[in-house]
Amino acid sequence: MRDIEHLQTAAQVRGAARKGELTEQTSGLAPGFAQANLVVLPREFAADFLLFCQRNPKPCPLLDVTSAGDPTPRRAAPTGDLRTDLPRYRVWEHGQLVDEPTDISHLWRDDFVSFVIGCSFTFEAALLRAAVPVRHIELGRNVPMFKTNRPCAAAGIFHGPLVVSMRPLKPADAIRAVQITSRYPSVHGAPVHLGLPEQIGITDLSRPDFGDVVPVEADELPVFWACGVTPQAVIMAAKPPLVITHSPGCMFVTDLLDEELAVG
Amino acid sequence: MRDIEHLQTAAQVRGAARKGELTEQTSGLAPGFAQANLVVLPREFAADFLLFCQRNPKPCPLLDVTSAGDPTPRRAAPTGDLRTDLPRYRVWEHGQLVDEPTDISHLWRDDFVSFVIGCSFTFEAALLRAAVPVRHIELGRNVPMFKTNRPCAAAGIFHGPLVVSMRPLKPADAIRAVQITSRYPSVHGAPVHLGLPEQIGITDLSRPDFGDVVPVEADELPVFWACGVTPQAVIMAAKPPLVITHSPGCMFVTDLLDEELAVG
Repeated sequence: MRDIEHLQTAAQVRGAARKGELTEQTSGLAPGFAQANLVVLPREFAADFLLFCQRNPKPCPLLDVTSAGDPTPRRAAPTGDLRTDLPRYRVWEHGQLVDEPTDISHLWRDDFVSFVIGCSFTFEAALLRAAVPVRHIELGRNVPMFKTNRPCAAAGIFHGPLVVSMRPLKPADAIRAVQITSRYPSVHGAPVHLGLPEQIGITDLSRPDFGDVVPVEADELPVFWACGVTPQAVIMAAKPPLVITHSPGCMFVTDLLDEELAVG
Repeated sequence: MRDIEHLQTAAQVRGAARKGELTEQTSGLAPGFAQANLVVLPREFAADFLLFCQRNPKPCPLLDVTSAGDPTPRRAAPTGDLRTDLPRYRVWEHGQLVDEPTDISHLWRDDFVSFVIGCSFTFEAALLRAAVPVRHIELGRNVPMFKTNRPCAAAGIFHGPLVVSMRPLKPADAIRAVQITSRYPSVHGAPVHLGLPEQIGITDLSRPDFGDVVPVEADELPVFWACGVTPQAVIMAAKPPLVITHSPGCMFVTDLLDEELAVG
């Protein structure tokens, strides 16, 4: 049992990260609070990226966007500080990873715009509550992710394929998963595809482009959701001079409740 | 163009059937009004059949059940008369079809209980409004139906397999169809299965047990819904001395609006 499992609220998790006590993955911490992907871009690229997210809401569901220079996402976490409250960050220059700090205060600029993007943890928690099994969690692996043959709608320098995550499910569970995840449009929502991977350009389920391999059994269908790796892949391909993201699995824990994000 | 296409309301359709002017299928008549399957049973079998429907709501969604002897479904059509308002009936004795009259007034008994059971026309209309194609309608065929290897929950003399209808859909349309039909639990609701027919005991999609053949294209999945033929098959197998049903396609047109049956 990790000594951080007392972190029951979003504010507790953010506080521990801020003090440097938490530098590892946030999965399972502050249950019930929505966790989020982070993208920080200089203002000159932020307008195009905002447009990209607006045009591709399934892979890029925006929970909050800050004003330039403001480190606090006023809607998602009014007491949060995006410079310090994530356990670990990644700093990218011209598409190359250059650092993985636990704090980005020393890099902060007045022209930074931060994008807080919904994450599949929220709908996975909803699936588990409904007894729909989530295999990669059972196996202790990362979800397998695949580039598809479906282009996102481009915006300025940002363009690229839709990336999807795959979860194998028995047919009745796949139907239930469509129903459940449809309630969470701000965390990728309903699946975009199921059952016929070659139709979206995926020819080998045993070779994901990102994440780990998760087998699909004979009585299961592969079910595909739009994935938050899409905007990251698009940004890396665009190679802006500077971008800062969360480190994989080291998410920003918001004050938004998972159930607050449910519609209907 | 049929000379009955002026029948725009449920009451008009029922009136035309009552006067003997309408003796054919009701598909497409009174658009927006929910059409229903009819089962009429003597009271001694009605209690078990009611229990069967309660235990199997997906194949047997009850829109209304009359009191014994009452020919009017008070909820579904307060001005309706189930003895006269269907274009054509089927009379079964000990499991054998013995007559197909256009009126059952002469057969009516004080101990008859009538079951008004939701029909897939309502959710098919919703699919078409959302531009989800319904192949058997495009082809002018009856929907293909299959007995599955899944037993219904038994009640008294009534037991038998779940019967499903099959509609081929592209994966994205299948996902949309789950969302749309989930809104209509009283007309079979969400699919019960998709994509792997052998898992539910269907080995040859080109040989339906009822209805017509509808091919599944390479870029499509077979999607299966619980079917209103289930209770009919169960009753026929139980061979009660007397049961009266609608004739295939000659439905009871209720005053309930399709949209009134939608949840959420």
